[in-house]
Amino acid sequence: MTALDALLESTDFAAAGERMHAFATELFPFCRSITGDGVRATLRAVDRRIPLAITEVPTRTPVFDWEIPREWNCRGGWIRDPDGRIVVDFADSNLHVMGYSTPVHCRLPLDELQPHLHSMPEHPDLIPYRTSYYQEAWAFCLPDRVRRELKPGTYEVCIDADLAPGALTYGECHIAGRGDEDVLLSCHVCHPSLANDNLSGIALATELGELLRQADLRHSYRLLFIPATIGSLAWLAANQNRLDRVRHGLVLTNVGDPGPPHYKRSRRETAEIDRAAAFVVAGWHADARVHPFSPYGYDERQFCAPGFNLPVGCLSRTPYGQYPQYHTSADNLDLIRPDALADSLRLCLHILAVLEGNAAYENLQPFGEPQLGRRGLYDLEGGRQHVETMRMAILWVLNQSDGSQDLLHIAERAALPFEAILAAARKLEAAGLIRQT
Amino acid sequence: MTALDALLESTDFAAAGERMHAFATELFPFCRSITGDGVRATLRAVDRRIPLAITEVPTRTPVFDWEIPREWNCRGGWIRDPDGRIVVDFADSNLHVMGYSTPVHCRLPLDELQPHLHSMPEHPDLIPYRTSYYQEAWAFCLPDRVRRELKPGTYEVCIDADLAPGALTYGECHIAGRGDEDVLLSCHVCHPSLANDNLSGIALATELGELLRQADLRHSYRLLFIPATIGSLAWLAANQNRLDRVRHGLVLTNVGDPGPPHYKRSRRETAEIDRAAAFVVAGWHADARVHPFSPYGYDERQFCAPGFNLPVGCLSRTPYGQYPQYHTSADNLDLIRPDALADSLRLCLHILAVLEGNAAYENLQPFGEPQLGRRGLYDLEGGRQHVETMRMAILWVLNQSDGSQDLLHIAERAALPFEAILAAARKLEAAGLIRQT
Amino acid sequence: MTALDALLESTDFAAAGERMHAFATELFPFCRSITGDGVRATLRAVDRRIPLAITEVPTRTPVFDWEIPREWNCRGGWIRDPDGRIVVDFADSNLHVMGYSTPVHCRLPLDELQPHLHSMPEHPDLIPYRTSYYQEAWAFCLPDRVRRELKPGTYEVCIDADLAPGALTYGECHIAGRGDEDVLLSCHVCHPSLANDNLSGIALATELGELLRQADLRHSYRLLFIPATIGSLAWLAANQNRLDRVRHGLVLTNVGDPGPPHYKRSRRETAEIDRAAAFVVAGWHADARVHPFSPYGYDERQFCAPGFNLPVGCLSRTPYGQYPQYHTSADNLDLIRPDALADSLRLCLHILAVLEGNAAYENLQPFGEPQLGRRGLYDLEGGRQHVETMRMAILWVLNQSDGSQDLLHIAERAALPFEAILAAARKLEAAGLIRQT
Repeated sequence: MTALDALLESTDFAAAGERMHAFATELFPFCRSITGDGVRATLRAVDRRIPLAITEVPTRTPVFDWEIPREWNCRGGWIRDPDGRIVVDFADSNLHVMGYSTPVHCRLPLDELQPHLHSMPEHPDLIPYRTSYYQEAWAFCLPDRVRRELKPGTYEVCIDADLAPGALTYGECHIAGRGDEDVLLSCHVCHPSLANDNLSGIALATELGELLRQADLRHSYRLLFIPATIGSLAWLAANQNRLDRVRHGLVLTNVGDPGPPHYKRSRRETAEIDRAAAFVVAGWHADARVHPFSPYGYDERQFCAPGFNLPVGCLSRTPYGQYPQYHTSADNLDLIRPDALADSLRLCLHILAVLEGNAAYENLQPFGEPQLGRRGLYDLEGGRQHVETMRMAILWVLNQSDGSQDLLHIAERAALPFEAILAAARKLEAAGLIRQT
Repeated sequence: MTALDALLESTDFAAAGERMHAFATELFPFCRSITGDGVRATLRAVDRRIPLAITEVPTRTPVFDWEIPREWNCRGGWIRDPDGRIVVDFADSNLHVMGYSTPVHCRLPLDELQPHLHSMPEHPDLIPYRTSYYQEAWAFCLPDRVRRELKPGTYEVCIDADLAPGALTYGECHIAGRGDEDVLLSCHVCHPSLANDNLSGIALATELGELLRQADLRHSYRLLFIPATIGSLAWLAANQNRLDRVRHGLVLTNVGDPGPPHYKRSRRETAEIDRAAAFVVAGWHADARVHPFSPYGYDERQFCAPGFNLPVGCLSRTPYGQYPQYHTSADNLDLIRPDALADSLRLCLHILAVLEGNAAYENLQPFGEPQLGRRGLYDLEGGRQHVETMRMAILWVLNQSDGSQDLLHIAERAALPFEAILAAARKLEAAGLIRQT
Repeated sequence: MTALDALLESTDFAAAGERMHAFATELFPFCRSITGDGVRATLRAVDRRIPLAITEVPTRTPVFDWEIPREWNCRGGWIRDPDGRIVVDFADSNLHVMGYSTPVHCRLPLDELQPHLHSMPEHPDLIPYRTSYYQEAWAFCLPDRVRRELKPGTYEVCIDADLAPGALTYGECHIAGRGDEDVLLSCHVCHPSLANDNLSGIALATELGELLRQADLRHSYRLLFIPATIGSLAWLAANQNRLDRVRHGLVLTNVGDPGPPHYKRSRRETAEIDRAAAFVVAGWHADARVHPFSPYGYDERQFCAPGFNLPVGCLSRTPYGQYPQYHTSADNLDLIRPDALADSLRLCLHILAVLEGNAAYENLQPFGEPQLGRRGLYDLEGGRQHVETMRMAILWVLNQSDGSQDLLHIAERAALPFEAILAAARKLEAAGLIRQT
């Protein structure tokens, strides 16, 4: 039994689900963006649970084809109508101010204000989430129902924000394993008050970190809490000389909604992480889906750029853009559920358990089947179903172990749970019938 | 935009369809066979539109396992019944005399005439199309309804034909491109008054020739107007030393009926022409079909013989033998339609546009995504759908361009139109982000 | 036409089916096990039809990871109830005594007898088949209906058996062919009065042997009549130095029931035997099935162990465990049918005919199609369907014969019967157009 199998047995997933939801609730109010104090506050909160190395990358630092932008911090923002009433207020929701809005304080007629407003006529009660990182602009986001009630006249607007040299901030938790190969687990921390996208990922990565730190692990784990795109590029730039140690990776996002799990393959399509995640996800739920790689989505876009081509896939529940609350104020703490977060945690641990346990073996008695009976491997204990599964698992491992097929290949071919194949391999190894190659 | 994309935009396809139908109408009356003056007249008519190099290969010239047969010319033929009435007359339809019939003029009783008659009891009003190239024989083809009314008595028959040393004639139009690789476009010219099989192919190839001659092309094009089997073998024999320049090829046949397009792959199955034609045809029409190679059909049989194994597929609408008018007098000018011919032309140009534009590229900024915004490649102009397609096309080209995947592979994987992928590649190349490998 | 095609034409399959059923009937009463006189009597009966080399491997001989067990012979066994009535008697069915039961004669109360009884509550009228080869034990097998009527009291039990040093016995019939490669045909002979599993296999192998001995064969055939597992291991151990001559193999079992044929692939999945058997079986019957390899089943488990990895698949009708009579007294002479046995024989011969006829050829006129007409290969004799099939077969063989594709590949690609492809190849070879590579 690997350390992760033990974790799977010992973890109280219901409690973990409540804990993750509570953590998302704690982080929800912060005004996060790709830079700024909201990110720092988020990382500090994570650091209270798992130790984070925090990196600050100064504005204008070159990062491949990009450079680190100015830092943005927003303290407030509001629109006052001709009657003097505040009709839109950052204090109510940090989605009201477009991310990276330049500071502004002025009075202007409604028709000049309109180009600075974003709303969704198809969802009149929701505030959309908008940003303008690389084009200087200011704007407010508001429910279309509110917008339609704005009457002609002069409005006063104020965005109390700084857009100035500073730094981009990211955090990394390194959990050392026995070997020198890394598993990346990455989540983006750049979204403001959006729960599924991506406080769910932050909470899941943090919980995973807490669990993995207790375990005796084969691989090392690097949990990245990074702003999307520019953050992952900054991390890649800083870690260029050890990217060849990245053996597997997962981007964690949208993992709190009640939808079924989805796995998007890495650019390599059949990397070990792809085979492991596809095998576990496909057997997880009838509606679970495995998708081919596509160069749109989250930071797997950067990890899977052709110059890196890292084996990093993306794990989510309902993928981005496929739930109506996506990138709106309805992506709130009601959308994410403790039991969905717990299910995502359990799913993740199952995938990691495959990666921890997977290896190729060589049958040391390859001439026919060895005599299992005299080694206590024929009459196994347990219920009839368990005994039949284990007997088949033992025969499959013996038959396929010529050094060329890893246990995951064997589980795929046998259509048996990986845990059964791994357990069979452990029994056969203990009996001296196979050895790891 | 390639020259072919420009042609696709500028061509008046409705007019081209009418023009092709008119050309088929002009050629319809000629008595074509694998040799003879009907072929020469056909080639002269083509030559009035596009310049043809005409080759005459003398009778008895060895051609691989074959030799050029005697030349056949037929001036007339008729059957006079016991009452002296002409009941079958070549002047009404050149299908009435079996191709390569030996000359005959004699009187004989009906029961001796019967073995020299071909009719189709299942289609009593149609004249079947028959030939006997390599076995000396004479025969008449007639509607079964006419045949059944023949009364006992003595008949006079006459076939005024020559079967004598001469030549086999074929034509070739060479359209030079910038490179030194050839695209073969081949159609058979050996059938008499049959419209779909293959005046449609002759008209399409001629129209394509007229259009391609106006364009600045990457590849050279060789349009072959050849008698089937022995004609293509003669061309192959004469061009043996430059067959390695044939990079792609299409046999054009049965392209005028209103059925959906069909593409039959070359023997290689996944040659670039196969991938290009399959990709375009599969997306052309819900009923369009792509078939694997089979060694029966038209001159792809010869081009794909194992000693040549050229990348030549076959493009048609309803394949031979799958429409009831096939090889009968009902394959007439009503069966082929201007709009179907125009659709075949447009389809052909789309396939050729893929071949002209396809190439592999290398991403020059492969470490993560380059910053598209500062190059004007992020906020694109156009409708929402166009912008989304182009954005995805740009990301796919960047992500996949490691030199190993050509644009067609990328279009296949992205499930995006080739034009979008090509347009993205052109934009990225202009921005210095990729270069052709 | 190969010798096997001739056999297929000349064999009276109905008579063969009756003969096989009669042979199974003759062998049915013997008490077979993995050792003992029942096996010897069975082999003697086979030897009366085809010459068998009989091998006796002494008890305690090491065989890879195993050793030959003691020999078991059972002369009788019964249970006498408190009233003195014999309620279970080996004389009625040799299934009543568990295979390899140790000798016993004692009196004991019902509750102490119960652990020594096997019955099937779900099939109250059937006697189950049980063995205990490698754990010393004694037991009776009986209908659950009988067991439930046993009343409390003292029972007398007797098993008159020997379990003592002796030998394991197997038989082999070698039929020499022209070449030096072997085809293994193996059936297990270790089951007592069970008809489908595996008197059907024994009868089929014997009948095959009688037929093959009459033929002029390309391959040599080795028909093995062996106890399962330990018997095949003993044969493998004795033949280790010539296993590289085994080119194809089939395990024959459960071939007499009326279900459709099933083929289970070898561990190689696409060995020539797999392609041949899959091609023939898939075309045999709409309900016929081809399954991937799995390491459970019959002696293919040993032949396909990773140290051997022989190209040996398994042919059956309804697979083991998938018919309700499996391993019970209902697997009797009514379950197997002369016509099913005959169908299995015919199927086997078809598969072997593919193996006998399959080869790769090289087209000697590869530049275009050769002129078939002047060689009499164009206007073929026979019905329209036959002529069309042969014409296509000729074109396929010519087109694909570049030395890399064997006739079976061509048949698969052409979707034509192997016999047609083989006949075409023979015609083309006779015409000097292809030669074997």
